[in-house]
Amino acid sequence: MSNKVVGILGGGQLGRMLGASASLLNIPIIVLDVGDDSPAKQILNNPSSKNLSHIDGSFKDPSFILQLAKKVDILTVEIEHVDVNALRKVRETHPHVEIHPSPETIGIIQDKYRQKLHLKEHLGGSSAPLGPFRSVDATREDIERAVEELGLPLMLKRRTLAYDGRGNYVLRKSDPPAIADAIQFLCPIGAGKDELYAEKWVPFIKELAVMVVRGRDGKVTSYPAVETVHRDNICHLVWAPFRTTSVEQDPGIRANAERIAQEAIKSFTGAGVFGVELFLLPSGEILINEIAPRPHNSGHYTIEACESSQYDNHLRAILGLPLGSTKMKVGAAGMVNILGSDGSEPSQPNEISFSPDAIIDKLTHVALSTPGAMPHLYGKAQSRKGRKMGHVTVVGVSDAEVRERMAGLLQALAEFERQPDSKTPPTPASLRPHLLGQSHPHPLISIIMGSDSDLPTMVPGAHILQKHFPSVPFEVTLVSAHRTPLRLAAFAKGAGERGVKVIIAGAGGAAHLPGMVASMTGLPVIGVPVDSKSVAGGGGGLGGVDAMWSILQMPRGIPVATVAINNSTNAALLAVRILSAGNPDLVREMEAYQRGLGEEVDKKIGTLGEIGWGNYGKK
Amino acid sequence: MSNKVVGILGGGQLGRMLGASASLLNIPIIVLDVGDDSPAKQILNNPSSKNLSHIDGSFKDPSFILQLAKKVDILTVEIEHVDVNALRKVRETHPHVEIHPSPETIGIIQDKYRQKLHLKEHLGGSSAPLGPFRSVDATREDIERAVEELGLPLMLKRRTLAYDGRGNYVLRKSDPPAIADAIQFLCPIGAGKDELYAEKWVPFIKELAVMVVRGRDGKVTSYPAVETVHRDNICHLVWAPFRTTSVEQDPGIRANAERIAQEAIKSFTGAGVFGVELFLLPSGEILINEIAPRPHNSGHYTIEACESSQYDNHLRAILGLPLGSTKMKVGAAGMVNILGSDGSEPSQPNEISFSPDAIIDKLTHVALSTPGAMPHLYGKAQSRKGRKMGHVTVVGVSDAEVRERMAGLLQALAEFERQPDSKTPPTPASLRPHLLGQSHPHPLISIIMGSDSDLPTMVPGAHILQKHFPSVPFEVTLVSAHRTPLRLAAFAKGAGERGVKVIIAGAGGAAHLPGMVASMTGLPVIGVPVDSKSVAGGGGGLGGVDAMWSILQMPRGIPVATVAINNSTNAALLAVRILSAGNPDLVREMEAYQRGLGEEVDKKIGTLGEIGWGNYGKK
Repeated sequence: MSNKVVGILGGGQLGRMLGASASLLNIPIIVLDVGDDSPAKQILNNPSSKNLSHIDGSFKDPSFILQLAKKVDILTVEIEHVDVNALRKVRETHPHVEIHPSPETIGIIQDKYRQKLHLKEHLGGSSAPLGPFRSVDATREDIERAVEELGLPLMLKRRTLAYDGRGNYVLRKSDPPAIADAIQFLCPIGAGKDELYAEKWVPFIKELAVMVVRGRDGKVTSYPAVETVHRDNICHLVWAPFRTTSVEQDPGIRANAERIAQEAIKSFTGAGVFGVELFLLPSGEILINEIAPRPHNSGHYTIEACESSQYDNHLRAILGLPLGSTKMKVGAAGMVNILGSDGSEPSQPNEISFSPDAIIDKLTHVALSTPGAMPHLYGKAQSRKGRKMGHVTVVGVSDAEVRERMAGLLQALAEFERQPDSKTPPTPASLRPHLLGQSHPHPLISIIMGSDSDLPTMVPGAHILQKHFPSVPFEVTLVSAHRTPLRLAAFAKGAGERGVKVIIAGAGGAAHLPGMVASMTGLPVIGVPVDSKSVAGGGGGLGGVDAMWSILQMPRGIPVATVAINNSTNAALLAVRILSAGNPDLVREMEAYQRGLGEEVDKKIGTLGEIGWGNYGKK
Repeated sequence: MSNKVVGILGGGQLGRMLGASASLLNIPIIVLDVGDDSPAKQILNNPSSKNLSHIDGSFKDPSFILQLAKKVDILTVEIEHVDVNALRKVRETHPHVEIHPSPETIGIIQDKYRQKLHLKEHLGGSSAPLGPFRSVDATREDIERAVEELGLPLMLKRRTLAYDGRGNYVLRKSDPPAIADAIQFLCPIGAGKDELYAEKWVPFIKELAVMVVRGRDGKVTSYPAVETVHRDNICHLVWAPFRTTSVEQDPGIRANAERIAQEAIKSFTGAGVFGVELFLLPSGEILINEIAPRPHNSGHYTIEACESSQYDNHLRAILGLPLGSTKMKVGAAGMVNILGSDGSEPSQPNEISFSPDAIIDKLTHVALSTPGAMPHLYGKAQSRKGRKMGHVTVVGVSDAEVRERMAGLLQALAEFERQPDSKTPPTPASLRPHLLGQSHPHPLISIIMGSDSDLPTMVPGAHILQKHFPSVPFEVTLVSAHRTPLRLAAFAKGAGERGVKVIIAGAGGAAHLPGMVASMTGLPVIGVPVDSKSVAGGGGGLGGVDAMWSILQMPRGIPVATVAINNSTNAALLAVRILSAGNPDLVREMEAYQRGLGEEVDKKIGTLGEIGWGNYGKK
């Protein structure tokens, strides 16, 4: 057992996952929370003989916090709504006990208005990546002034004890009854001082999150930025890593989000993992939404998907151990939260039931039938509507595979949530089937060409992918070196961030497209020389040799993989072979395809033997 | 909480890791083992209020087994040395309790001689994949007869209660004193009946292991075959997946090992995970060594490296849930066991100590500093020499990366084990540094050419890899299409199983090498057309155009990625880009290399501006 004992304020699911990481290192953990069976306590069996008994009490109660402090070397939190003054007092009375993150950090972050003021001060003042905000009293007059200043709709928030959307109110009209409703919602038992603040409405197109690890030396590192999808203000889905989704989108968004999140966390004190929630604006600009001083729902996926998880790294950080690698070890990951329902539906007739709450049971069973899916149930005694009861992480070689694997879970959820009187279940957008003859929204292969006149030459490549390698997602689009040079640059620079792994570029004549794309990306580029005589109005009768030399004879430093003239089929097959570097299953699929080619020849050999060479090919 | 309760006989590290998987699904587990603090009990906090208290008693004691049976729906084992008769009795007295695997299976497997007889009977009699064996009495006469029949050295084994080499004895001479020593070692308190059996010595070159999952319906699936390395008969290292290491080795070994292991486990009854240990002979033949009816040391790596772990799958199998994917989600993985030492060395002066046993503390600290490494400490109260106290799993994108990451751990172990009077620590073979100008033993890129006369053309590609992409392992060798056609076939068919991801083939003149290799593998093949005029005695003055057309104009179905004539540099750079499909870091490395190319031009622009075009290039 480690010679350091860690105390956690809070024993919910985050404490449970922290506890699982601690068990790997045999680090003793003492949990402070009410009851003897909270999620974290269930997996940390501390015999009283070791003087490591968990504490049955509230993490908001100073006396219990002091009781915990007496038994540990390090204190940390799995929830920020703790008594900060009690932590400060621990620092006076128990100076040898380290508290991570610091009580000051927790104090700033647990008051969202102070959090915003702090970030504004430390991240460049008016140029800080924050939307406009201001304090507001819970009075009609002050809210009217805030509307005047920040416009409508106006986001009114409680400064403290607000999470998962509780304590947030969107004010859409500024007439007195609307304001009265807002005050009633936010301050139902009457308003005290400094309870609220206001944020200008942010017209974001996506929400991102970055988990940042801060060492005791103040150095920070982060996990990849992820996309989060909320429903009713509660985290619903996480997609990792965040991907741009169009050629036009700035490929620097992910790096920028990670940089902003790291800068924000540098400004605090104390060690640990921090969740930074961000807004992505249509312009590509990124604003900080909120910070959590602890592991975060958007980082659950790191357990299965990264070299070290956020829980491993929270422990490493607070214990002063070397931080673990935050790199993803899989191609992509997704996470869906399992929330409790109102329990109105009966359980499915499975032999094993994981929960009396039908939706939890159902999603767990669907997850167990999904390759690469790992259900996590938190062991909460009571399920209730909207309560976080578990989650499922899904990993795969690509965004497309992860979304396909996730589809069954989302479909089950949609069916479950269908209203009894509606006939068709809602189909989540992410489940729309990939249509034949259409580009996949999450392609691994991008097939581009300078003109639609090249399409007849390039389409056979698309067909071979669709027919023989249906698991390989691809897109087909136009990028012209000479007519859309800026699109060429945007395409090449952004392809990697969109998740593309191989580019196939077809070009005739001067055929600059493949080489110019290769010069602006680190991805492999396959060039298909197109015989421009074969396209309407083109060509100088060179049979594609002009394009071939242009694509083939690239200078040292910038390679293009050239295939035979007009042979988009081989370009597509080469792209699949290239993808096998990240997905060994494709080697087997390709070898099966090759055996198929051999069998076709075998058939012809049979026919030739049967009917003789003299009759072969005659009707 | 699940409506099924699982009881485990045994509460050691395997029970602990099973328990961790059970917690994810909130499946209640009751552990039967001596004491209240065994490794498994530490992470399964069952309050007595739920009637799920663990049992403090021996898993060999029928009364405790019955006591456990009363509280559970399913019984399973984490160790095979249990009282099988007690399990049989449970089946009579508690018919609703399922026992997995079946008591019959455990009974057969726990007696190694019966295990061998069973396998011989079910796997084809004399053609079964087993070395010769026979029963032997613990008498001089019978052992002499066994030597006569099976030769020397002779492996004498206890039939029961033998593991980690305990109960095994290698008889090297057959004189009476040697035999007496063997009997004394194996039967120290006097020989009973049916205690021993003998196996013909198997001159294996490697040991493999396959974890097989058997569902309640009798269907089996398996994890990839792995290589295991033993020291003093105890598992020391695991490398996953197993790789062939030479062009000559049969690329079917892995599939064959998996098939044999699956067939073996089909012959038993009951569900769960089984560890099948195998010998690989110089001929490529595979023999079964031993079977374990439970999760196994050689499958620990699956926790971090596979889509579902062996522990997840053991639970799924015994509960009748859908089996999880056994696919690896990382490129490669390794595992090293942490064994207790005799404790003679003092602890390192770290702020945090994980164990009073210095080697455990040291290896844990080294693992925490190693990217992709995950230490698992089992929480055993007492460390002693040779006891399994923990393990470290290392994952990475490739065999080479895993071995490099593992090197620090093995080096630390070697330094620790250095005798005080020896000056240089022993360097494990796996730590030999990769020498410049030499082929890497675990290449991702294979550079081949038909003749050493092509070497001057191909070496620039090797140089650019070594200089700019030192993390990318590669090999350089000769394969001639026309002079070594069988080697060509062996090379192409086996490259994937050796872990190669991209092949670069240089060829001049008729230049059949790249295309023929591509026809016999599913891996991507890059062809470098070599101007054979530039090599001694070759060429017809075609400037490499002959080779270029031959490599480029491959028929539909079999692609070769062709680069410019003689441009092995671009072939190497293309290979790195291809590898980025499995390792996104390489995209960033490639883009940094490309920025370097731009900066070189920037310098020349500066010089040209400074000294003028008229003086440029003059001394």
